[in-house]
Amino acid sequence: MTSSVVEPCTFEDMQVDLEKNVQQDVRSQWVLNAPEPPSPWHVALDSFRKTVSNYREKTSSLSDQSCGTLLLSVLHVVFPILVWGRSYTVAKFRKDFLAGLTIASLCIPQSIGYATLANLAPQYGLYTSVVPPLIYAVMGTSREIAIGPVAVVSLLLSSMVQKLVDPSTDPIGYTKLIFLATLFAGIFQTSFGLFRLGFLVDFLSHAAIVGFVAGAAIVIGLQQLKGLFGITHFTTKTDIISVLKAVWEAFHNPWNPHNFILGGSFLVFILTTRFVGKRKKKLFWLASIAPLVSVILSTLVVFLTRADKNGVKIVKHVKGGLNPSSINQLDFNSPHVVDVAKIGLIVAVVALTESVAVGRSFASIKGYQLDGNKEMMSIGFTNIIGSLTSCYVATGSFSRTAVNYAAGCESLISNIVMAITVMISLQFLTNLLYYTPIAIIASVILSALPGLIDINEAYKIWKVDKLDFLACAGAFFGVLFASVEIGLLVAVVISFAKIIVISIRPSTETLGKLPGTDLFCDVDQYPMAIQIPGVMIIRMKSALLCFANANFVKERIIKWVTQKGLEDDKGNSKSTIQLVILDTSNLVNIDTSGIASMEELYKCLSTHGKQLAIANPRWQVIHKLKVSNFVSKIGGRVYLTVEEAVASCKSNHF
Amino acid sequence: MTSSVVEPCTFEDMQVDLEKNVQQDVRSQWVLNAPEPPSPWHVALDSFRKTVSNYREKTSSLSDQSCGTLLLSVLHVVFPILVWGRSYTVAKFRKDFLAGLTIASLCIPQSIGYATLANLAPQYGLYTSVVPPLIYAVMGTSREIAIGPVAVVSLLLSSMVQKLVDPSTDPIGYTKLIFLATLFAGIFQTSFGLFRLGFLVDFLSHAAIVGFVAGAAIVIGLQQLKGLFGITHFTTKTDIISVLKAVWEAFHNPWNPHNFILGGSFLVFILTTRFVGKRKKKLFWLASIAPLVSVILSTLVVFLTRADKNGVKIVKHVKGGLNPSSINQLDFNSPHVVDVAKIGLIVAVVALTESVAVGRSFASIKGYQLDGNKEMMSIGFTNIIGSLTSCYVATGSFSRTAVNYAAGCESLISNIVMAITVMISLQFLTNLLYYTPIAIIASVILSALPGLIDINEAYKIWKVDKLDFLACAGAFFGVLFASVEIGLLVAVVISFAKIIVISIRPSTETLGKLPGTDLFCDVDQYPMAIQIPGVMIIRMKSALLCFANANFVKERIIKWVTQKGLEDDKGNSKSTIQLVILDTSNLVNIDTSGIASMEELYKCLSTHGKQLAIANPRWQVIHKLKVSNFVSKIGGRVYLTVEEAVASCKSNHF
Repeated sequence: MTSSVVEPCTFEDMQVDLEKNVQQDVRSQWVLNAPEPPSPWHVALDSFRKTVSNYREKTSSLSDQSCGTLLLSVLHVVFPILVWGRSYTVAKFRKDFLAGLTIASLCIPQSIGYATLANLAPQYGLYTSVVPPLIYAVMGTSREIAIGPVAVVSLLLSSMVQKLVDPSTDPIGYTKLIFLATLFAGIFQTSFGLFRLGFLVDFLSHAAIVGFVAGAAIVIGLQQLKGLFGITHFTTKTDIISVLKAVWEAFHNPWNPHNFILGGSFLVFILTTRFVGKRKKKLFWLASIAPLVSVILSTLVVFLTRADKNGVKIVKHVKGGLNPSSINQLDFNSPHVVDVAKIGLIVAVVALTESVAVGRSFASIKGYQLDGNKEMMSIGFTNIIGSLTSCYVATGSFSRTAVNYAAGCESLISNIVMAITVMISLQFLTNLLYYTPIAIIASVILSALPGLIDINEAYKIWKVDKLDFLACAGAFFGVLFASVEIGLLVAVVISFAKIIVISIRPSTETLGKLPGTDLFCDVDQYPMAIQIPGVMIIRMKSALLCFANANFVKERIIKWVTQKGLEDDKGNSKSTIQLVILDTSNLVNIDTSGIASMEELYKCLSTHGKQLAIANPRWQVIHKLKVSNFVSKIGGRVYLTVEEAVASCKSNHF
Repeated sequence: MTSSVVEPCTFEDMQVDLEKNVQQDVRSQWVLNAPEPPSPWHVALDSFRKTVSNYREKTSSLSDQSCGTLLLSVLHVVFPILVWGRSYTVAKFRKDFLAGLTIASLCIPQSIGYATLANLAPQYGLYTSVVPPLIYAVMGTSREIAIGPVAVVSLLLSSMVQKLVDPSTDPIGYTKLIFLATLFAGIFQTSFGLFRLGFLVDFLSHAAIVGFVAGAAIVIGLQQLKGLFGITHFTTKTDIISVLKAVWEAFHNPWNPHNFILGGSFLVFILTTRFVGKRKKKLFWLASIAPLVSVILSTLVVFLTRADKNGVKIVKHVKGGLNPSSINQLDFNSPHVVDVAKIGLIVAVVALTESVAVGRSFASIKGYQLDGNKEMMSIGFTNIIGSLTSCYVATGSFSRTAVNYAAGCESLISNIVMAITVMISLQFLTNLLYYTPIAIIASVILSALPGLIDINEAYKIWKVDKLDFLACAGAFFGVLFASVEIGLLVAVVISFAKIIVISIRPSTETLGKLPGTDLFCDVDQYPMAIQIPGVMIIRMKSALLCFANANFVKERIIKWVTQKGLEDDKGNSKSTIQLVILDTSNLVNIDTSGIASMEELYKCLSTHGKQLAIANPRWQVIHKLKVSNFVSKIGGRVYLTVEEAVASCKSNHF
C-alpha cells in the first residue's frame, strides 16, 4: 500500500493509483447505491410490531396446548413461585427462615419510622410490611429483594401530598390521598411493564441516583432530629436550612435531654455492633438484631423508669390487628385527583428505580438476569393490592435487601417469613410497642443512612466524568437545599442537557495519517499521525450536523481555508489547502440546516477554487445527501474511506 | 493483506498473523497511551480565553498606534462605512439612489400597516423607517439589508405586550411598554454580539423557521381581513379559529362592500404587476412601484368621490414631523418590567434570526461573509437608539431586502436614501395620507405575504428529513391554531427533542467485512458485507452510551449471545458466538452508567466463556474506560480497528 502519499507522485505511484482507482470507483458506488434506510415511522412501527408479535408468540405457543396446560403455563409466567417452588428444599427453607427473621427484626422499627416520615400513623408502616412482601413473593423474579416501605419514597410521598392536604389538620383526608397515590403508582408501574417501557427507569442516570439518594439520606437524617431531640414544634419543610433553623429554635426553648441521651446511646450501640459485624463476619448477626435489641431494651427502660412522665416521647398507641380494607377510602371524586395522579407517576418511577437498581445489583452478584418488565408488573401489582389493604407505596428496600442477602436468603420465602412475623407482631405485640421511645426509632433509621451516602462512588464519578458529577452534585444539593422534587428535576434536566451539549457541541478535529497504515485519525488523540500537505481532513466532534452547530462548523472551516497566512497549532500554513475532506464517519444524522450549511460550504470553497469530498458517510447521512441532490452537486465525490478520498482526488490532478 | 480471515487458518496465514501481531500490539499501545483529552472546564476556559485574547489582540494591535490612528482604527471597526465609503463612486450612488427610492415606495405603506399590526399609531411605523436605517447604514456589515419594521416582529410584539396592557383602553401605557421592550431587545442583541453568542440565532432550526414564518404569514394575512373588509369589531386573538369566527360574525352584521372592492381590485393590480415583473425582468420596476401607485391612486379616488362618507375606512390623521424623543417614556418602574424584559429577549432572538438569515442569504449570493457577532451588535445598537427616538423593534426585512437587491443596490447608502425619503414624507406629506383607505394598506401587506410561504422548501424538508418536517409542521400549526409564542415554543421543543432521540436511540447495527478490504461496515447499509462466523461485531447507532440507552443495549447483546438457537435476520445461529467486538468508533462519549453497563456485559459474557473486545474508541471514550479501570478488566483488549481485533483474538486461540 502507498504510504508515500505525502511525497510527490512518481510514475509508478500513478500506475498503482490507476489500478486502485477502479476499485475505488466500485467502492464509491457501494456507498452511493446503499439501500434506502428505514424511515422513522418504519422504525417506530417495526418496534411496535415486535412488541405485539412478542405477545402473540407467547399466546400462540400457549394456544397449542390443552386447556389445563394452558392455564398452568399462564400461571407459571404470572407466578414464578410455581416454577422455582418445585425445586425448593428444607435446607433452603432453613436459610430463608433465619434471613426472614433477621429482616423482620430490622423491618419493625424501620416501618414505624418510615410511616412517621410519611406523616402516617405507625401501623400503616407495619401494614405495608405485610401484604406487599406476600404478593411480591409469589410474583417477583428477584431472589433477594426485601419489599416494604422505604425511606426515600416515604419522604417523597409526604413532601408532595402534604402540599394538597395538611396531615396535622386533616389526617384522614391525607391518608386517603396517600392510598390513592399508591393505587396510581401501582397502575403506572403495571402499565410500564405491560407496554415494555422499562427504559423509563433508566431516565435517572446512575450519577443522578447517587447524588439524589445521598441528599435524600441527609434530609431523612435531619427529619430524625425531631425524634432524637424530642422536639415538639418542627418544620414541615425538608430543606436543610429550614430544618436546622427549627432545631436551633427548639434549643432556645427549654428541652429535655433524656430523649437525646437514650437515642444517642442506642445509636452508638447499633453503630458499634455494625462496625464489629463488618470486621468479624461471624458476628454479623449481632449487627442484624441490634435494632430489635435496642427497641426491646429501651422500651423496658422506659416502662420500668416511667421516663415518659419525665419528658421522654414514646410511640404510644399502635392500632393492633391485621390490615383493614381501604377500598372505601379511595376517593376518585377528590378535587386533587389529577395532582395525586401526577404524584403517583413520580413516585412510581422513583420506587421502580430503587427496586430495579437493588434487584439488578444483587442479581448481577449471583449471576442471573432480572426481567425489568416483569419486575415492574410485579411491583405495580403489589402496590395496587397494597392500596386496597391500607398499605402505602412499597418497593425493594436497599438496606433490608442487603441484610437479607448477607443473612443468606435463598429465595423470596424469606419475604413471606418476614411478613408473617410482622403479622404476628401486629396481632399480638402492638401493646408492647406503647412505651417504645421515639428517639430509638429515630436511631434505627439514622443508623441505616450512612449506607446510602456513597462517597467512593461519587469520587469515582468525579474522576471519570466531570459532567456526570455535575448531575450528581446538582441532585444532591437540589434535594438538600430546595426539595426532593426539585432535586429530582435538577438531576433529570442536567442529565438531558448533558446529552444535548455533547451531541451538538460545535467542534471539529483534524485528521492525519497513522504511519504504516491507511487509517486517518485525530491528530490530538494520536500525536504520531501525519497531516497531508494541501489537504485538510476534518471530522465533527459532535454526533449530529444540525441547526444548532452546522453554521458554526461551516464558518470555522471557511475561515481556516480562506484566510491567508493562518497557521494551525503545528505551524502548518493552511492557506495552501486545495482539498477539504469531511470525514462524516461519526455523524449519526444530519438535518436540513446541516445540508444547507454544507451546500454553502461547497459554494464558498468552489469560488476559492478548492475541492470538497465526503468520506465514510453513515446510512442516514448518505441517504439524505443523495435525496437533497448534494451528492450530485459535489460531483459524486463520496468515498468509503479518507484514504480513498485522498488518493482519488490526488489522481484526478485537482 | 489477508482477505482470508473468513476461511480456516493455514500455516502461512498464521505466520503473517504473527508478524502482524507485533504491529497490532504497537497500534493497541497507540490507542491506550493517547494523551489525556482536555477536561470540560479546560474546553470552556479555553474558549473563554480565546474570546478574551481575540479582543486583547485587537486592542493591543491598536495600542501600538498613535492616539489619532488609534481613534481612527476603533472608528473603522465600529463604523464600517468609513472603510467602504472611501471607495464609493458616483456610479454606485446612482444605483443606490434608485434602489433607495424603490424601497421607500414600498416602505411607506408597509410601515403604516405593520404599525397597525403592532397596535400602534401609523406614525410609529414611519418613525421606525427613519432612525434605524440611518444607524444601521453606518454600523452594519451587510450591503443589501433594508432595515425597518417587519411583519413577524410586529405581530409577536403586539401579541405578547397586549397581554400586559390593553392597547384599546390604554394606548399610551401600551406604547410605553413597546418602547421598553425595544430597548431591552436592543440591549440583549448588543450583548449577544459582545459576548459572541452568535449561536443563539441558530437555536431555531431552518425547518422550524420555514414553518414558523409560513404560519406567521397566514396569521398576518388573517389580521389584514379586518382592514380589507372594513370590519369594526375584530378579535385581539391571532389564532385562525378566533379570526375566522370574528370575520364570520362581521358578515352577519350589515357590512360595507366598498372597502373590499377597493382593496381587492388594487390587490389584483399589485399581484398582476408582480407576475409581469417576474416574467419580464425589464418590467421589474413596475412591481416595485405598484404599491405606491396603488396608495396614490386609491387616495385620489377616495378624495374625489368622498367615499369615506360611504363607509370606506381611511387612515385619517397621521401625526406629522420627525421622530420625537421617547427617553421620558421609558418607565423602568413599571410593574411589568420583568415581563417586558422577557418579551424583549424573545423578540431580540426572533428579530436577529430574520435579519441574519436575510443578510446571510444575500451575502452568499454576492459571495462575501457576514460577521454574525458584528451584525448582532449593529442591530442591537440600532434598536437601543430606536427606543429613544419613538421607534419600535427594527430588523432586516425580507421583502424590502429582496426588492433592494433586485433594484440593484450597491451599498447601505440605499437605506439612507430610503430614510431621507420617509423623513420628507413625514415632514410634508402626512396630510396627503389622510384619505388613504385602510383596505389598500391591507392589500400592500397581503401582497408581500405569498413570498413568506415556501411550499417548495417544505416539500424538500419532507423529502429529506421527516423529523425536521415535524418541527416545521409543529411551528406552522402552533402559530396558526394557538399563538405566535406557542408556535415558537413548539418549534424549539421539537428541534431539541429530535436531537435527544437521535443521540440516545437505543439501537445497534451488526458489522460485516467488505469484500477485498479490511473494512467492517453495517451489513444493512452494505449488503455485500460478510459476517464472520463465531464473532459478533456490534456498533451503536447512537452517539452516546449513557444512562438512557446503555442498559437496553447491554441486555440486547446478552440476549443475542446467550440465548441458544436464536437466529439473526440472515439465518445465522448466534449461539456459537465466542467473541463480541464493540466498534465504538461513533461513540462520541460515554458516561458512568454506560461504563457500568459495559462492566456488567463483560461479567456476563465471561461467565458464559465468551470474550469481549473494543475497537477504535474515540478520545473521550478510551480515556474514561482507562480511568475507570475497564481496560485492565477486559485484559487490555482494545484495538485500533475491527480487523485487528478479529485477527488478534483469532491468533490468541480464544
